[in-house]
Amino acid sequence: MIAVYGMAVSGNCWKAAQILRLTGHAFRWVETDGNTGATRTPAFLAINPNGKVPAVVLEDGAVITESNAILLHFAEGTSWLPAPGLARTRVMEWLFFEQYSHEPYIAVARNLRSYARTAAQFPERMAQCMERGAQALALMERRLATHDWLTDAGPSVADLSLFAYTHVADEGGFDLAAYPGVAAWVARLAAVPGVEGLRRAAG
Amino acid sequence: MIAVYGMAVSGNCWKAAQILRLTGHAFRWVETDGNTGATRTPAFLAINPNGKVPAVVLEDGAVITESNAILLHFAEGTSWLPAPGLARTRVMEWLFFEQYSHEPYIAVARNLRSYARTAAQFPERMAQCMERGAQALALMERRLATHDWLTDAGPSVADLSLFAYTHVADEGGFDLAAYPGVAAWVARLAAVPGVEGLRRAAG
Repeated sequence: MIAVYGMAVSGNCWKAAQILRLTGHAFRWVETDGNTGATRTPAFLAINPNGKVPAVVLEDGAVITESNAILLHFAEGTSWLPAPGLARTRVMEWLFFEQYSHEPYIAVARNLRSYARTAAQFPERMAQCMERGAQALALMERRLATHDWLTDAGPSVADLSLFAYTHVADEGGFDLAAYPGVAAWVARLAAVPGVEGLRRAAG
Repeated sequence: MIAVYGMAVSGNCWKAAQILRLTGHAFRWVETDGNTGATRTPAFLAINPNGKVPAVVLEDGAVITESNAILLHFAEGTSWLPAPGLARTRVMEWLFFEQYSHEPYIAVARNLRSYARTAAQFPERMAQCMERGAQALALMERRLATHDWLTDAGPSVADLSLFAYTHVADEGGFDLAAYPGVAAWVARLAAVPGVEGLRRAAG
């Protein structure tokens, strides 16, 4: 059976479980918490020398890392990834945007504020996260104010990838009420059968 | 004719020109320097509302952004991108690694040190770039110490993407002599017919 090494509160790890559920793959989850050193043990480094989760171990032992590469791997041949050409390229644009311009600010703000709880120690870092995170949400709003999904191909791995940290962006201090198109899209994707939201911080 | 809006010294912009050359597409280059405000003019924002280069304008007017999405778009159906399956997924892993774990440190160090020349003003930022950049190069070395290319599929867009800022990493203060597998790979890719290195800082 496929094994997913991941942290339950991580949006990047959520992507792996979510695409496996949506594409009908059974898997077991191996909770692996980077904050407690579990990604630095010899056993885990033998699985992923980069020491990062998520890491998906296939039945033949091959290991896939990088959350958006995992999304693409299991989406190939399904409705979650359009055929090659401009339709697929639109999905790719959003996936690289997510890792470069969205996750480093929106996921990091959430971690500093609600998990590591060190936002007060890093005010400049937090301020940068809020500024750049707002820019990322504004870019999404420009599309989602007038469209149901991030690309014209219908719900795709682009939507799953951006949903990961956007639907819990409030934990980083972002108010989605300021981005009504984004908020409506979050509700729309959450209503797709098989889509399950991420675990939230415990109070 | 295809138009590429980009900065000649940018590795991300280099990727667009390089894949077009390698796949036999004629194009014109429109020098667009973010440092002089050229990416913030109304004319450019009409092309890419995100205000970033590279932006590739196809003959029908469609615009493609995100450097690694541009690589993938033009590589589809060529030897630079293997068929779907684990071979392609290996390429995707490196492309997302490049944008998340390599470019933000190695490209930024180069800019601070050799172009913006503000490394002395931002010592903590520069120190982070050197630490994380070294980690990225060490990860590449682990593969390239014993293999010719980043994936088993032969030279691919993964190699082009990582080459962009690695072959000029010395401008950021990284010494590739410490990574002999990476240095040999840089020379190997530079020797592929059609591959041209990036313009360097003028002294």
